[in-house]
Amino acid sequence: MKKRSLTDLRKEIDGINLSILDLLSKRGEFVQEIGFLKAEKGMETFNPTREAEMLEGILKKNRGPYSNDSIKKLFKHIFEASMTLIEEEVHKEFLFSRKSKADNSVIELSGSVKIGAGKPVIMAGPCSVESLGQMEKIGSYLSSCGVKIMRGGAFKPRTSPYTFQGLRKKGLEILREIADKYDLRIITEVMDPRHLDMVAEYADILQIGARNMYNYELLKELGRVKTPVMLKRGFMSTLQEFLYSAEYILSRGNGNVILCERGIRTFERWTRNTLDISAIPILKNESHLPVIVDISHALGRTDVAIPIAKAALAAGADGIMVETHYNPAIALSDGDQQLSLPEFRGLLKEIGMLNEDGIDLM
Amino acid sequence: MKKRSLTDLRKEIDGINLSILDLLSKRGEFVQEIGFLKAEKGMETFNPTREAEMLEGILKKNRGPYSNDSIKKLFKHIFEASMTLIEEEVHKEFLFSRKSKADNSVIELSGSVKIGAGKPVIMAGPCSVESLGQMEKIGSYLSSCGVKIMRGGAFKPRTSPYTFQGLRKKGLEILREIADKYDLRIITEVMDPRHLDMVAEYADILQIGARNMYNYELLKELGRVKTPVMLKRGFMSTLQEFLYSAEYILSRGNGNVILCERGIRTFERWTRNTLDISAIPILKNESHLPVIVDISHALGRTDVAIPIAKAALAAGADGIMVETHYNPAIALSDGDQQLSLPEFRGLLKEIGMLNEDGIDLM
Amino acid sequence: MKKRSLTDLRKEIDGINLSILDLLSKRGEFVQEIGFLKAEKGMETFNPTREAEMLEGILKKNRGPYSNDSIKKLFKHIFEASMTLIEEEVHKEFLFSRKSKADNSVIELSGSVKIGAGKPVIMAGPCSVESLGQMEKIGSYLSSCGVKIMRGGAFKPRTSPYTFQGLRKKGLEILREIADKYDLRIITEVMDPRHLDMVAEYADILQIGARNMYNYELLKELGRVKTPVMLKRGFMSTLQEFLYSAEYILSRGNGNVILCERGIRTFERWTRNTLDISAIPILKNESHLPVIVDISHALGRTDVAIPIAKAALAAGADGIMVETHYNPAIALSDGDQQLSLPEFRGLLKEIGMLNEDGIDLM
Amino acid sequence: MKKRSLTDLRKEIDGINLSILDLLSKRGEFVQEIGFLKAEKGMETFNPTREAEMLEGILKKNRGPYSNDSIKKLFKHIFEASMTLIEEEVHKEFLFSRKSKADNSVIELSGSVKIGAGKPVIMAGPCSVESLGQMEKIGSYLSSCGVKIMRGGAFKPRTSPYTFQGLRKKGLEILREIADKYDLRIITEVMDPRHLDMVAEYADILQIGARNMYNYELLKELGRVKTPVMLKRGFMSTLQEFLYSAEYILSRGNGNVILCERGIRTFERWTRNTLDISAIPILKNESHLPVIVDISHALGRTDVAIPIAKAALAAGADGIMVETHYNPAIALSDGDQQLSLPEFRGLLKEIGMLNEDGIDLM
Repeated sequence: MKKRSLTDLRKEIDGINLSILDLLSKRGEFVQEIGFLKAEKGMETFNPTREAEMLEGILKKNRGPYSNDSIKKLFKHIFEASMTLIEEEVHKEFLFSRKSKADNSVIELSGSVKIGAGKPVIMAGPCSVESLGQMEKIGSYLSSCGVKIMRGGAFKPRTSPYTFQGLRKKGLEILREIADKYDLRIITEVMDPRHLDMVAEYADILQIGARNMYNYELLKELGRVKTPVMLKRGFMSTLQEFLYSAEYILSRGNGNVILCERGIRTFERWTRNTLDISAIPILKNESHLPVIVDISHALGRTDVAIPIAKAALAAGADGIMVETHYNPAIALSDGDQQLSLPEFRGLLKEIGMLNEDGIDLM
Repeated sequence: MKKRSLTDLRKEIDGINLSILDLLSKRGEFVQEIGFLKAEKGMETFNPTREAEMLEGILKKNRGPYSNDSIKKLFKHIFEASMTLIEEEVHKEFLFSRKSKADNSVIELSGSVKIGAGKPVIMAGPCSVESLGQMEKIGSYLSSCGVKIMRGGAFKPRTSPYTFQGLRKKGLEILREIADKYDLRIITEVMDPRHLDMVAEYADILQIGARNMYNYELLKELGRVKTPVMLKRGFMSTLQEFLYSAEYILSRGNGNVILCERGIRTFERWTRNTLDISAIPILKNESHLPVIVDISHALGRTDVAIPIAKAALAAGADGIMVETHYNPAIALSDGDQQLSLPEFRGLLKEIGMLNEDGIDLM
Repeated sequence: MKKRSLTDLRKEIDGINLSILDLLSKRGEFVQEIGFLKAEKGMETFNPTREAEMLEGILKKNRGPYSNDSIKKLFKHIFEASMTLIEEEVHKEFLFSRKSKADNSVIELSGSVKIGAGKPVIMAGPCSVESLGQMEKIGSYLSSCGVKIMRGGAFKPRTSPYTFQGLRKKGLEILREIADKYDLRIITEVMDPRHLDMVAEYADILQIGARNMYNYELLKELGRVKTPVMLKRGFMSTLQEFLYSAEYILSRGNGNVILCERGIRTFERWTRNTLDISAIPILKNESHLPVIVDISHALGRTDVAIPIAKAALAAGADGIMVETHYNPAIALSDGDQQLSLPEFRGLLKEIGMLNEDGIDLM
Repeated sequence: MKKRSLTDLRKEIDGINLSILDLLSKRGEFVQEIGFLKAEKGMETFNPTREAEMLEGILKKNRGPYSNDSIKKLFKHIFEASMTLIEEEVHKEFLFSRKSKADNSVIELSGSVKIGAGKPVIMAGPCSVESLGQMEKIGSYLSSCGVKIMRGGAFKPRTSPYTFQGLRKKGLEILREIADKYDLRIITEVMDPRHLDMVAEYADILQIGARNMYNYELLKELGRVKTPVMLKRGFMSTLQEFLYSAEYILSRGNGNVILCERGIRTFERWTRNTLDISAIPILKNESHLPVIVDISHALGRTDVAIPIAKAALAAGADGIMVETHYNPAIALSDGDQQLSLPEFRGLLKEIGMLNEDGIDLM
């Protein structure tokens, strides 16, 4: 073989690159035509049998030097890019995506409380609703600090079937009573599609817990209502899975979705979970939905709540969820991670979110 | 201070040890009495306020040399042991436990197919039910190999709301038709408490997928029926959480529970998940329930299916679940992890579970 | 049995609690005496044979109602508390601990550059030293931004033995030359105890990479020198292991240790590692050593560097390490995670650390 | 636009596919030519600047319908395939790979003890060498069971600098004395390149612990000697990183490398680590090197040692490493995971590896 110089060889390759590009463009146009045709006829875009046939045809003609394996991979990428071409329209409609909606979504609650509008929010309250007296103490305190959104579990997903499972309907009633008395909005969990209508009657925001992030039938139901939904990231879920779960709700018609990062499960044992701080800016980049950080479940301890709340806000979070109880030592669940009310007030002050007009009632 | 020898000091300590023991025993008896009293009155065993008061009383009297922190910890351990005393009765009734039932549970299906009876079983079939033709090909083949239990998803939990979600009711009908034709038992997934009765009408075993292991409201519903349930371990779940989820079903009245290990999520990227092989003997030690290993989801690849199936059986598994399709390349889901039918036959042969009377139809 | 009331039973228990406390205190005093005795004779504190004998003696006398298992556990806790009593002195000398030194450690470098003194620092530079020309461009730029500490790898721990392993001694010379020219301090990695003296000759701070956090023989060597050491957390290490590794260096006589959180390995795939933001305040609480956050290795991407740098500082970090290169696309290693110089300048500005006297040279 | 039928459009696409294939093949040939040219001149294969230029040239000409992003991705795949073409030669020389050596490597020790020759081996002994008496008891017992390879740590990598670090040289002497007396081969850890020659003088197999898998300078040193090396997988390492670490040793001239899977770190807490059983067949497929499974470190408990040893062998392991001590309760390290000698004998019997000629001495 006559020896060519590196420069010559590179020129040849440059030429081939452009020829391949040209063929790809032509191919793309045909693919689009097929896409329209199929859309008209209501046919499925993806046809694995056709792909298998194409690959077979191509590999039969492969004379090297690329191995069949390499050629197969390259054409799979070309097929994929073609699928993407067709689906791009759909994709533009991936409803969580910034590509489908450039501006931040703002979730509006009653009393002009807004989530995602630039000013961070606080969601605070006990792990579980335990009694009217408990919620009275907590609700009045929160209100005095200027908090607008109160959390409290009426339906509790508990590891053991024998531990306290929440006051259920009674808990919802207590929440509503206190919320109305102190001008608070309620966020509370729903765990079962059959409870959805009942919970939605009492709640201002429906919470989907980390354990239910993959409960797709429940997510679909949430698309039916208009009540805002806060979807927590599963503690072993990738960010992609998280956004796709949000899409389940959005795609069924409920656009009021809030994302909540609450820590992922790792090997580290000094915290209950590991707060994935990078999730905040990445979710904000990928999606227009508001992002809240639940620092209590992320940490499972209260001593570093203040620096972590600051970090979450610095990373761009639209708000902080934090558990607080008038006496964490006797809480029916998660005592270790609930701040006492004065500790909670201290946190608010440190992050500049204590409403100075509030009067400390304790 | 007069200096005592090591031997003398040790004798003193030995004496104190026994005095502490004596006091602990007396304490235990009082605790038991309280336990009975509370049980009579229907009071909660655990009373955090009382514990807080006791601790306070004790710490007030602490004169050292142990720090308050150390004393607090020691008494917390004593309180815990006391709780255990009371709960031991309950615990004996932790229904999954070998302490409540020493003998292996055997799950009986129609046609005398037994799971957990010593001879391992195979559960095989495609990821998703796609068409009658597909299931015909697979069902007849499985039957020819002597397989008795066929898997196939009619309801599919999919990461994206836009991918194939299963044929749902139509899929169940296809499964039943093929199963009846080829004398197969059906295992298929149920994802929503509202579908339970419908799925139970068609299925011999109800599968709860890994994503729903924490779906406690669904688990409770499964306690209502008598159909056997195979509960998959969440890919993010500890073994303790897994057993507690089983308890949700058992405690509501359905004793026919099968456990399924299917891999956990780790940082390793050459397998889809990491099969937790140790889970098998540990679950068998802790519980009388049968343990099946789903090697397809654990691996996400087919090339090492045979050694891993062997390992699972060697570790004590009561059976293997494996995905197989007549043409994995065109499967609507999970193509990479489904064995072709001849590969599946090869696996059966290698693990000594090919029924020699079966005739290979392909 | 005559039935006693709950109140009576509780009084009995309260009495027993105090008797146990009294015995524990006496026991503690004997244990301390033994501790002193052993210290005098240079005997090991922990004697497992003695513990085994004590346990045996105790269990023989156990008459219930606590199970042997419970009693064993309780006494193990008592033994442990006793060990702690003795070791508390030692513990106070756990050199990394805030208990041994309440004030923040400040690491001083030449030119009055201080780490841990309240004002956060920036450590910036390329992943690898590649050439004098490269370092000239980067060093002059950093200097113009007011950066005082430059990073750059001369010895590179690379996954494959066939990829670029660093310029080694040549790289150190380049680093020093540029550093001297632009009044920068150098941080660079040492991987082998045999290279320590050579690297220490050129470097102002010795970096121990995440892969070497468990390289205890190397850590011991670092105790020999006085050069400050920045120890990176292993990407699969608990915080406890991390602090214990720091103790290896401190305990051999080098008190100039800086801790560096750089992300841990999890299942999430949109970032190279998961930055453990909680590690920052927890390490600051547990230890007096400064804590730096390496955002480049934590993220493996550059698009969210600014919010994550802000979060790290908000969480209390004493500084940020970040990789920057004059042309990341052609970097010999880690191109994806290196900021371009203007991007780096943008980051400095956003976090308020751009030295306004610096002149932008590009 | 005239409307073409699906069939027509597909024919067009089939034609384009083959034209693209043709161009790829031509491109591949040029790439190979460049590869040879570069090899001659000793130039680096990978040239990121050239790739950046090519991409730029291509994107300038992109007229759609594929987005620039899609085209960029496709060409990156083409570039990657081209790199692979060139590196395939190198790859064939990746020394751990089955592509470079199809037959299993067999490691021969004195006395015709072979590892990887088909018959599995046992490596047993205590975590740490503690005294001559201890090793005498254990060595004589192992020998009586027919064990040929004894483990025992003289250099111990310990989390805390204040816990027992091994007897070091004294430990090596004890090991050798007992080994010679009972005709055993010794495997023991080396942690520092400076100790290598000394350890190699006493040991038959040099062990690299999980914590040192990334200690590349140490691995390079091991390439210098001929003594067999057992490399443990880091508990945080992917299989790819593991094989690449083996390559460090192989590429420096020592072909006697044994791989050891010992569990990876996960969130599960009922075992110390999670044994990655799939690693065994995957490593055996990828590499010709023998694979040993350390069940003690993987489990951190002894009660399921037998089923896990069986599983490891069923998955294709070339041997089992297990810790055993004459009295685990008083062991100076890792007491919880060491089998007593009779338990160890029971394990050997269960897995069919008890040498019947051995006489039980205890």
